[in-house]
Amino acid sequence: MRAAVLLEPGRIEMQERPLPAPEPGDVLVRVTTVGVCGSDAHYYREGRIGEFVVTDPIVLGHEASGVVVAVGDGVPQSRIGERVSIEPQRPDPLTEETRRGDYNLCPHMRFYATPPVDGALCEYVTIGAAFAHPVPDTVSDDAAALCEPLSVGIAAVRKARVTAGSRVLVTGAGPVGIVVAQVARAFGAVEVVVTDLDERRRETAQSFGASAALDPRVDDPSALRVDAYIDASGAPAAVDSGIRAVRPGGTVVLVGSGAETMTLPVQLVQNRELILTGVFRYANTWPTALALVESGRVDLDSMVTARFPLDKTADALESDRTPGNIKAVVDVTDPAGKD
Amino acid sequence: MRAAVLLEPGRIEMQERPLPAPEPGDVLVRVTTVGVCGSDAHYYREGRIGEFVVTDPIVLGHEASGVVVAVGDGVPQSRIGERVSIEPQRPDPLTEETRRGDYNLCPHMRFYATPPVDGALCEYVTIGAAFAHPVPDTVSDDAAALCEPLSVGIAAVRKARVTAGSRVLVTGAGPVGIVVAQVARAFGAVEVVVTDLDERRRETAQSFGASAALDPRVDDPSALRVDAYIDASGAPAAVDSGIRAVRPGGTVVLVGSGAETMTLPVQLVQNRELILTGVFRYANTWPTALALVESGRVDLDSMVTARFPLDKTADALESDRTPGNIKAVVDVTDPAGKD
Amino acid sequence: MRAAVLLEPGRIEMQERPLPAPEPGDVLVRVTTVGVCGSDAHYYREGRIGEFVVTDPIVLGHEASGVVVAVGDGVPQSRIGERVSIEPQRPDPLTEETRRGDYNLCPHMRFYATPPVDGALCEYVTIGAAFAHPVPDTVSDDAAALCEPLSVGIAAVRKARVTAGSRVLVTGAGPVGIVVAQVARAFGAVEVVVTDLDERRRETAQSFGASAALDPRVDDPSALRVDAYIDASGAPAAVDSGIRAVRPGGTVVLVGSGAETMTLPVQLVQNRELILTGVFRYANTWPTALALVESGRVDLDSMVTARFPLDKTADALESDRTPGNIKAVVDVTDPAGKD
Amino acid sequence: MRAAVLLEPGRIEMQERPLPAPEPGDVLVRVTTVGVCGSDAHYYREGRIGEFVVTDPIVLGHEASGVVVAVGDGVPQSRIGERVSIEPQRPDPLTEETRRGDYNLCPHMRFYATPPVDGALCEYVTIGAAFAHPVPDTVSDDAAALCEPLSVGIAAVRKARVTAGSRVLVTGAGPVGIVVAQVARAFGAVEVVVTDLDERRRETAQSFGASAALDPRVDDPSALRVDAYIDASGAPAAVDSGIRAVRPGGTVVLVGSGAETMTLPVQLVQNRELILTGVFRYANTWPTALALVESGRVDLDSMVTARFPLDKTADALESDRTPGNIKAVVDVTDPAGKD
Repeated sequence: MRAAVLLEPGRIEMQERPLPAPEPGDVLVRVTTVGVCGSDAHYYREGRIGEFVVTDPIVLGHEASGVVVAVGDGVPQSRIGERVSIEPQRPDPLTEETRRGDYNLCPHMRFYATPPVDGALCEYVTIGAAFAHPVPDTVSDDAAALCEPLSVGIAAVRKARVTAGSRVLVTGAGPVGIVVAQVARAFGAVEVVVTDLDERRRETAQSFGASAALDPRVDDPSALRVDAYIDASGAPAAVDSGIRAVRPGGTVVLVGSGAETMTLPVQLVQNRELILTGVFRYANTWPTALALVESGRVDLDSMVTARFPLDKTADALESDRTPGNIKAVVDVTDPAGKD
Repeated sequence: MRAAVLLEPGRIEMQERPLPAPEPGDVLVRVTTVGVCGSDAHYYREGRIGEFVVTDPIVLGHEASGVVVAVGDGVPQSRIGERVSIEPQRPDPLTEETRRGDYNLCPHMRFYATPPVDGALCEYVTIGAAFAHPVPDTVSDDAAALCEPLSVGIAAVRKARVTAGSRVLVTGAGPVGIVVAQVARAFGAVEVVVTDLDERRRETAQSFGASAALDPRVDDPSALRVDAYIDASGAPAAVDSGIRAVRPGGTVVLVGSGAETMTLPVQLVQNRELILTGVFRYANTWPTALALVESGRVDLDSMVTARFPLDKTADALESDRTPGNIKAVVDVTDPAGKD
Repeated sequence: MRAAVLLEPGRIEMQERPLPAPEPGDVLVRVTTVGVCGSDAHYYREGRIGEFVVTDPIVLGHEASGVVVAVGDGVPQSRIGERVSIEPQRPDPLTEETRRGDYNLCPHMRFYATPPVDGALCEYVTIGAAFAHPVPDTVSDDAAALCEPLSVGIAAVRKARVTAGSRVLVTGAGPVGIVVAQVARAFGAVEVVVTDLDERRRETAQSFGASAALDPRVDDPSALRVDAYIDASGAPAAVDSGIRAVRPGGTVVLVGSGAETMTLPVQLVQNRELILTGVFRYANTWPTALALVESGRVDLDSMVTARFPLDKTADALESDRTPGNIKAVVDVTDPAGKD
Repeated sequence: MRAAVLLEPGRIEMQERPLPAPEPGDVLVRVTTVGVCGSDAHYYREGRIGEFVVTDPIVLGHEASGVVVAVGDGVPQSRIGERVSIEPQRPDPLTEETRRGDYNLCPHMRFYATPPVDGALCEYVTIGAAFAHPVPDTVSDDAAALCEPLSVGIAAVRKARVTAGSRVLVTGAGPVGIVVAQVARAFGAVEVVVTDLDERRRETAQSFGASAALDPRVDDPSALRVDAYIDASGAPAAVDSGIRAVRPGGTVVLVGSGAETMTLPVQLVQNRELILTGVFRYANTWPTALALVESGRVDLDSMVTARFPLDKTADALESDRTPGNIKAVVDVTDPAGKD
């Protein structure tokens, strides 16, 4: 099969690789669509994210949809032919974290496109059968792939305790911020204020359901009074002002990856008894993700602003710098990308 | 002022009564609209609900909106002229229940239209200033009055732990069932199945957002698999089949008033570790109620199917037997009802 | 190996059986001690519990400790020789329930001594490696076996939301009631009232930490006011009076197995907004169980009132009718029980 | 009556003041014992805590017990003569925070010894009747006064989600740390590790139930793996290492007052999905506090290491610098302190 392999920072090579064999309990999936995430672009440019370092060639991509084409031992043959959205993680079922339902925190996790585990920017991948979620007919291949970033949004909005009537602040109107804003709406938020320095991104946020989009240099977010604040920027100044916007007893969720440490207004966290936490991927989100897409409460298809064949993976990884880009996808089935 | 007074079962008399004086901390409200609740009709017909017995003449009505016309000591004059939705309860701020936020469970509660406390079917009422909730301009007087039954729905849906993606069963498509169905949607439910024996009520439920409306004699609700089940019927057969529809770990909330005891499938409750509870009025619901109405996520105005002047209160109390009736309101300001 | 096999109601036969082979991920455990549970006695006498029917010969026993003597593929050899407490369940790691941490509710569960799965009243058993919990040196083999009923108590007390300062009612002073009373204390309850018809059992309850033990025919439990009520009797009259003892907003947990349906005071559940639920086995309890035993906060050893060799399993199963019996154990290593 | 009045930093003067009159709903309490808190000493020395500045003479002291000697309107005469523990706060019952049960977060709070509100270092004080908690005979006046710092500990341990079997780290073995350690035990923690730079304080912590007391310069707390971490030091280095000790999904509660901002390992908070929060006083803790003291689960009496008459209040405020001091109390009834 063909795979887009990152050899070293900035250098992707198309390689012919053997088809992976599904282990017991796995399905083999022919990949349809792969969304490009900021973390993919970061590995591509820097060769590392924090302590995760690309030392050997690796296949990137962890937002993927496809079709089951074979099954490992113990998986019913009836799954062959099924369209699936891939939850790109393999937790160890035996750890304490997995057993209590927090499998994203499993210390033995193997996660797509996280060294040394290969990802989905190739023609075929394997995954545990329960992590290949059946996709309703009305959900597109693109949307099925983007259930992965949607899951990040769901995890964040759950931890933010957003519910009907909530007022929410989201800092950062990149793809994560836009997903979070949509999800907050789907959880019943009546007000979702998004901030971003970039005017075009602010407009995009509003077109995806933000009730207001502020330039933080003009309108200070800390003057708001919200029930929940979710950071999707990773910017210390945003986080500081966002925390100050939260009402007593409210919640702060940090999604954006930023520096290892950050200076926070802890006295305010104490005096208002704020609950501050973060999300690390997600657990038990796919049924909700698919339900929200199928019911039309979240629109993933409109977030796709660029499409590339597999052999243009490097271009796809660069496209986050294109003005107006929200989410690029690699269409692995595109014959234009085949020799 | 004029008041519709229940003298004995089935007999309402218009009386002239002295204007109530606001106590310290109270506001005096000129009543605009009063919704008619099943419990009002029950007191009107039977003279009692369980242990609450009408022994002296009483003013019914506890779903009310109005305008603040005077304030008691300690309440700012600026409130005069404010349109308000009345939360018709006076908890004792000193009890353990009130202090921990469950003020609806306060053992010293004084509640409108619950003997011996008078209700709102009259021209003027008093209430604690914090229980007269300011109403946005875009919310009608009718909707402001119906924030009371909406609050019952919010309390039920919260206890049912409905969230984005939930699948919900509601038994009973009367006004409470319809409010519950709407609120479940506003909390993000993707599927809301309502059951009722009456075809017209089933149609009504669908027009208010139910994804399906079943005749339980035709489609057995226990064949469903839902995350949450809310009873708004009080019917033992409905409750039994509803409980059987709930997935392991799901929730059952009993809203409908029924018999003192009921035979329940407890072994199933145990084996599926269902959480079963009930609601008794509501606490801390009005901000959510007003936010849902203002944002258009819940439609209360369309639930009003009949309107009466104050001196036709008896007709209003009888109107729940009119086919197609959802919710009758008494328009206290209607000059047609004045001498 | 030797196994005590139930052939038909009331008839146990010692059989020689082949040693089970550990599957991948399993450990093979040489059994040390097996506690006798009421459900074992029920299968022994009746041949069924509800829908679970003994149609083929079965080995009973699901409260077991032992020593790891071999490991299946993927399990480190270092586990051989480890003393373990067996969590007697094999959930399917792929189901929704297991994935969210509620593995006790897994629909594909295979559980020891539940037809058609054999239990532990034999010399060797296999179990998933993560379900064979290492036992500290200071915890006896008996206590390691009784971590199973202790887990039932932990599950019940968690669901009852018992915490420091709680006042708790427990109906039934059999082995489950005594474990529940001890666990409630360990969770910080300052008052644990136990009821039982039998005087000797009431005395036992007090010796295990109940603050009071009432004869319900003399002292009506419904006159109490508790934060949490846990039934360990299965008796409808006890459940009815117990529910009436719970303060508004409190919790009811049904542990005792009783009839399929029960008539409950639902209006009171509604008016007090009680939370009523049940427990079905347990999940994620063993670390807590071992911590409570090791720290001395729960005393399991003193609960053992009779001890039998493996070939006296029938006597062990009968011993629950011996006055003063709390918990019988089968000492599988007892040479007196070998030919 | 006599009152110890802080005129300016470092200068306390005994003054004769008029007896306060109980307002409606209040009780008048003759003060028995007042505990000295670090915040009292801070006001005494610095004249301010953060934004709270002593501009006018003020009476310090907010840990108080006494006897009811008169009642305001609406309070039953039967309360006269009652020994009480004072919860030194007057929330506004009408704010959103108070109504939902978080009355400690009420924006209109009036709190003892917080400018401009006088505290309890005087002979008589008034407080809302529901905030004067009746004290069982077996609880001493000292312990009744120290229910206030105990409440801080209860609030912290609740937010830390400590339960049976928890492993807990507490940094700082001053009076707050010691209370927190005791409370964690009462909530069922099986391991409570306390750190402090001072050897004598470490020994004290162990005598009050810490399972280990570490010198953080010798034993790095970040090598631990705990379920919950509670800071009672306010020291940035302690907080940084404490956070690193928490297992994935665990909790961090900041009690100690420190700087307005702090640099925190946020990436670790995200990657482990830690929940970080703080406590601001307490709400709904007194019933638990009194239950824990009465049942002997927490020992407050042994924490009293120094006793002063009212006219030696300045010495009491200085005594936190005496080696071996845990908690000083002012015995307002001590005749040696009267002229």
